[in-house]
Amino acid sequence: MAKPTDDELAAAWHDLMGRYQRLTCTLDRELGTAHGLSASEFEVLQQLFLAPDGRLKMASLGERAHLTQSALSRLVTRLEADDLVARTSCRDDRRAVFAQITDAGRARYEEARPTQRRVLREGDCPAVLR
Amino acid sequence: MAKPTDDELAAAWHDLMGRYQRLTCTLDRELGTAHGLSASEFEVLQQLFLAPDGRLKMASLGERAHLTQSALSRLVTRLEADDLVARTSCRDDRRAVFAQITDAGRARYEEARPTQRRVLREGDCPAVLR
Repeated sequence: MAKPTDDELAAAWHDLMGRYQRLTCTLDRELGTAHGLSASEFEVLQQLFLAPDGRLKMASLGERAHLTQSALSRLVTRLEADDLVARTSCRDDRRAVFAQITDAGRARYEEARPTQRRVLREGDCPAVLR
Repeated sequence: MAKPTDDELAAAWHDLMGRYQRLTCTLDRELGTAHGLSASEFEVLQQLFLAPDGRLKMASLGERAHLTQSALSRLVTRLEADDLVARTSCRDDRRAVFAQITDAGRARYEEARPTQRRVLREGDCPAVLR
């Protein structure tokens, strides 16, 4: 395949931004309406659900959910208010703060997962992933 | 190619989110440092630069730059403060508001374009676009 020109790369990036943002918007709407979660909140619950013992250091969770620490902190505060996540600290290192998914958080994630998978299947995710 | 499973789609979407957000972050940093523009501001200037007569209706500009009308309105207000864009209205239909790139806006866009193209070329944009 010929190496793309700079303008072709820019056009492809522009196109990808659009598809990414439309899909994020659809996820926010569908997950919000049916399960009271944003796309980012779903990602955070998913990362915790998949982690051993359902917990991760905040720094590691931010990396995995692609969020800055300040955005993650606000998001975890919202999830704590709904009792879906709890912040805990480690006995050996009190400076390390963990986020821990609660039983209610696991239940909410498992309810929401089929909605997210349906949006990815039906939306333009396959096109995004081309 | 086998049809991806739902979990494969979800993993691919998660991976794409990360690459998209890292590239947006790099664009914000490099365009911000060198040219005082965010990635979104650059996109708006680019859409106006490419449009006939350098102007577009706000509604059309929002679609092309993948921004909601409220986000676009705030962004255009910032660009107006730097004299890079001007809002105009049409003599025949005063309800239609246009954004118009200024000469200073064209100059800033042309200065910033090589930076954006370099980030796309050097960053993981080719991987994003795979």
